[in-house]
Amino acid sequence: MTDDREPAAALVSAADGGDPRALARLISLVENGSPQLRGVMKLIAPRTGRARVVGLTGAPGVGKSTITGALVRAYRGREERVGVLAVDPTSPFTGGALLGDRVRMQEHATDGGVFIRSMASRGHLGGLSWAVPQALRILDAAGFDVVLIETVGVGQAEVAIASLADSTLVIVAPGMGDSVQAAKAGILEIADIFVVNKSDRPGAQETVRDLRTMLAMAPHRDEGAWKPPIVSTSAASGEGIEDLVGRLDAHAEWLAATGERDRKRLARARDEISAMAIAELTQRLSVLPGEANLEKLAGLVASGKLDPYSAADELING
Amino acid sequence: MTDDREPAAALVSAADGGDPRALARLISLVENGSPQLRGVMKLIAPRTGRARVVGLTGAPGVGKSTITGALVRAYRGREERVGVLAVDPTSPFTGGALLGDRVRMQEHATDGGVFIRSMASRGHLGGLSWAVPQALRILDAAGFDVVLIETVGVGQAEVAIASLADSTLVIVAPGMGDSVQAAKAGILEIADIFVVNKSDRPGAQETVRDLRTMLAMAPHRDEGAWKPPIVSTSAASGEGIEDLVGRLDAHAEWLAATGERDRKRLARARDEISAMAIAELTQRLSVLPGEANLEKLAGLVASGKLDPYSAADELING
Repeated sequence: MTDDREPAAALVSAADGGDPRALARLISLVENGSPQLRGVMKLIAPRTGRARVVGLTGAPGVGKSTITGALVRAYRGREERVGVLAVDPTSPFTGGALLGDRVRMQEHATDGGVFIRSMASRGHLGGLSWAVPQALRILDAAGFDVVLIETVGVGQAEVAIASLADSTLVIVAPGMGDSVQAAKAGILEIADIFVVNKSDRPGAQETVRDLRTMLAMAPHRDEGAWKPPIVSTSAASGEGIEDLVGRLDAHAEWLAATGERDRKRLARARDEISAMAIAELTQRLSVLPGEANLEKLAGLVASGKLDPYSAADELING
Repeated sequence: MTDDREPAAALVSAADGGDPRALARLISLVENGSPQLRGVMKLIAPRTGRARVVGLTGAPGVGKSTITGALVRAYRGREERVGVLAVDPTSPFTGGALLGDRVRMQEHATDGGVFIRSMASRGHLGGLSWAVPQALRILDAAGFDVVLIETVGVGQAEVAIASLADSTLVIVAPGMGDSVQAAKAGILEIADIFVVNKSDRPGAQETVRDLRTMLAMAPHRDEGAWKPPIVSTSAASGEGIEDLVGRLDAHAEWLAATGERDRKRLARARDEISAMAIAELTQRLSVLPGEANLEKLAGLVASGKLDPYSAADELING
């Protein structure tokens, strides 16, 4: 249904008014790697850099979507426009908006202040680091005050999301067995706020205690550094969400006051440019004369007649 | 501790005898991206392509390590030499062999027929697709009959592992809540064998039933295609492991008989060469004269004065 030939300028100005159809088409251009994107990004560059970006990550089943929904309602209550990108690195074989979006959108169907979209990674390593920042730019330029980026919290995707976000929530739940264990592995460094969701369940206090212990054992932080708070929520009933929003506001203030926000934005731009440059070089590789040799080279490597380094050299040099 | 200057040839010939110290050093060369690797890969190329490669994936807590351990014992019982690569995509900030390896190795400390090594991804997108195939080559060339590659089953890592393996086990456990739900998302396509571990727990039969339903709803497979069996195990007690080994043998026979094994090996070599070529091009990017401009370009992009495509062009073209 996406008409790639629809003029970029028309889509961009419609998206600016919050038109969900135009927004969906622009993000489809990202997902399809459309050549139109170049023009779109040139057009919108001056309007970017305003949205607050919140990343939400956690193991499957901890209640990420419920928290996202509760945050959407809270920000809408403050008359802020909210965009949601639900990034699914576990679905490499499908793409486009998921059924879940349509269900979730229904609550906000008549509310132009909310836009929700899923993105699948399509199995391209590096795909997320290329596509998600561009989708974020589109929502940012369209004037959304807050963009929530939700992703499953295992794997490299969450690190990519954390480097995009101004504030990263790491969500765990009691009785998920390994949720804190999984959280330990590398998540400590990316969490600005820990959320213990489903806090009415047995084991919630132990989970909070585990997190406290983990934070206490963490390497010493500098004076004035941000100390990640632990917020208990029961997102289904809305309990704790006000507290969470308050913590997010406090983190945003801290980022602004310390200059950390600008530092983060600069790092994000660096990552974005590098990902683009790598994608461009990779694409050049696939159109190099050597590409026709890939089958032949693969045969030589598979049979042990050639090592992969020499094969890669030959592929690059044609 | 790793002495990068130790001659590659000496390490390779020591590793060939199964010397764990030499194997560990060679894999450290991979983890460190040592320039010595080129020479190592040239030397070992003719000896590669013999090991059977089994991938094991599943959510945290389903018992991947226990199944890996049970398979190691089973293959050792048949006098086969077994290598294990435990790939941890959730640990981007650490590297090298983990404590768990040393604990796991203890059981096999005096057994030169077993080698176990963890690899962390170090947060490099694409890092796993570059490093794991090379570590696999090292174990393959050192004469291990079977190489087990174990990884956390959420995210893109499992897809990368599945494309490396001859046979991929997708492991789930009852009472893990979302383990089958998570498995549904994209895992159907990569599983050669489903393992329902902890089959003595309540809910095991429902888990098997869920998987059966999922398989029945899958797109029609061609006549003669491999139908992924569902094996119930209780790996801690060893129950079902013999059945699992039998299914793996059957899959290996099917791969050989249908020519699918060669097709998979060719595809693996293609992926390997591409990953190498991309890594090489990326590295060239980082030494391009434009790199000095990255800070300046990032500032322009962060302030909306430039779009990331134009910045990437300038980075590449200097």
